[in-house]
Amino acid sequence: MSKPDNPLANVRIVLSHTSHPGNIGAAARAMKTMGLHDLRLVQPKSFPDPMAVAMSAGSTDVLDGAVTTATLSESLAGATLVAGCTARRRDLSHDLLSAREAAPILISQASVAPVALVFGTEMSGLTNAELDQCQMLVRIPANPDYSSLNLAAAVQILGYELRCALPDSEYAVADARKSLAELAVHEDLELFYREMEQALLQIGFLNPAAPRRLMTRLRRLYARTRLEKDELNILMGILKHIKTPTPARPVEPENS
Amino acid sequence: MSKPDNPLANVRIVLSHTSHPGNIGAAARAMKTMGLHDLRLVQPKSFPDPMAVAMSAGSTDVLDGAVTTATLSESLAGATLVAGCTARRRDLSHDLLSAREAAPILISQASVAPVALVFGTEMSGLTNAELDQCQMLVRIPANPDYSSLNLAAAVQILGYELRCALPDSEYAVADARKSLAELAVHEDLELFYREMEQALLQIGFLNPAAPRRLMTRLRRLYARTRLEKDELNILMGILKHIKTPTPARPVEPENS
Repeated sequence: MSKPDNPLANVRIVLSHTSHPGNIGAAARAMKTMGLHDLRLVQPKSFPDPMAVAMSAGSTDVLDGAVTTATLSESLAGATLVAGCTARRRDLSHDLLSAREAAPILISQASVAPVALVFGTEMSGLTNAELDQCQMLVRIPANPDYSSLNLAAAVQILGYELRCALPDSEYAVADARKSLAELAVHEDLELFYREMEQALLQIGFLNPAAPRRLMTRLRRLYARTRLEKDELNILMGILKHIKTPTPARPVEPENS
Repeated sequence: MSKPDNPLANVRIVLSHTSHPGNIGAAARAMKTMGLHDLRLVQPKSFPDPMAVAMSAGSTDVLDGAVTTATLSESLAGATLVAGCTARRRDLSHDLLSAREAAPILISQASVAPVALVFGTEMSGLTNAELDQCQMLVRIPANPDYSSLNLAAAVQILGYELRCALPDSEYAVADARKSLAELAVHEDLELFYREMEQALLQIGFLNPAAPRRLMTRLRRLYARTRLEKDELNILMGILKHIKTPTPARPVEPENS
């Protein structure tokens, strides 16, 4: 994210009254892995603290830049949208969104002005007074019998969802492989299937009296792989050697 | 998730050669918050360990049920789909999916048979030998300048995506084929690769002086297909006939 208008630069992570400095460090690490850098701490029990540095695993730039304030309000100054993270369903009349639903809204707003995500204490979460300063509540789907996410884990998931919500998100990496590899062309694949059929007949696996279903199954199997050109060369080399075995071949096959 | 057919019960989290027992405990906590319980440990440096218990924050049931094995293969026995978690883009030809793309595929398969998610060491991730036992790679989108997610954080995000992909989740996406087909299990795939290697040696395609790259390429090619049990039977039948050709075979092969 080197773009000047990086929305993540406008996202503040605000940790209120955090008890364990190690959690601040772990949260800083979680933030940095997702490209977040703006950390605000409301009356942390102990900060700066060597335990925070130890748990930050090299994210000391985030810790060094952290701003400590006496009140939540000070940490939220300038923020145009404030979301509170909660593990519980609250009975108040806030909008309660899932992390996935909230992320695009936060990113959209962060592309024009600062937004903030607020996390309460490890033990009891956000107070009602803190909730009053939030405009929406965000909830991470969790095991109803054990929803006790570590503070840094909650920051990690929210940060992850924010990153995935970026306009140029890289989370669609499915075809990374396919765009790098040169895939085999149709006519070469058809040649491969014909050669395979002949080889299977020759070794007595394919019964010419009823050949159809077997080749169809093999076709579908290989179709799913989307064979690369080089891979097809290997398979063609194997078929050639099935037809004409040459034991004790001294060199690497030229096709591999 | 009280449904008897809870797909999360079929998802194994496999941690290979974990250095720090605290990370095992934190991973157990991350698992439990998302409803995962099946933890496998391949040669952990220290387990059981008080540090694991301390970091599990009450997820001792997950730790108590953890199975420790000497090899990755043992932890994968019975698994029908194996995904390796990687922070890097790899140059080989595995399918590389984002966590969000992989989750519905894993959940879909887990609704019928066991699947596994494999995490390598904290320092260096999965080895190439471990990658060879995976059928897909999963990547968590991260800050390219600092992609160093804590092990438990990676487990947390993958678990979160799996939970969001549950059929009764509003985010679920279907994958029709895999939910119908019975996939081959890990140990049968390993047997297939061993038989293939022998057959390729016999016909002189594989050079025993430099065999490694060829088998890796073939492994990855077949890994991408996620072979069905019946398809594996066909391929095993072909290998048998390559080793012992029986020309003019009069009947349908019994394996097809």
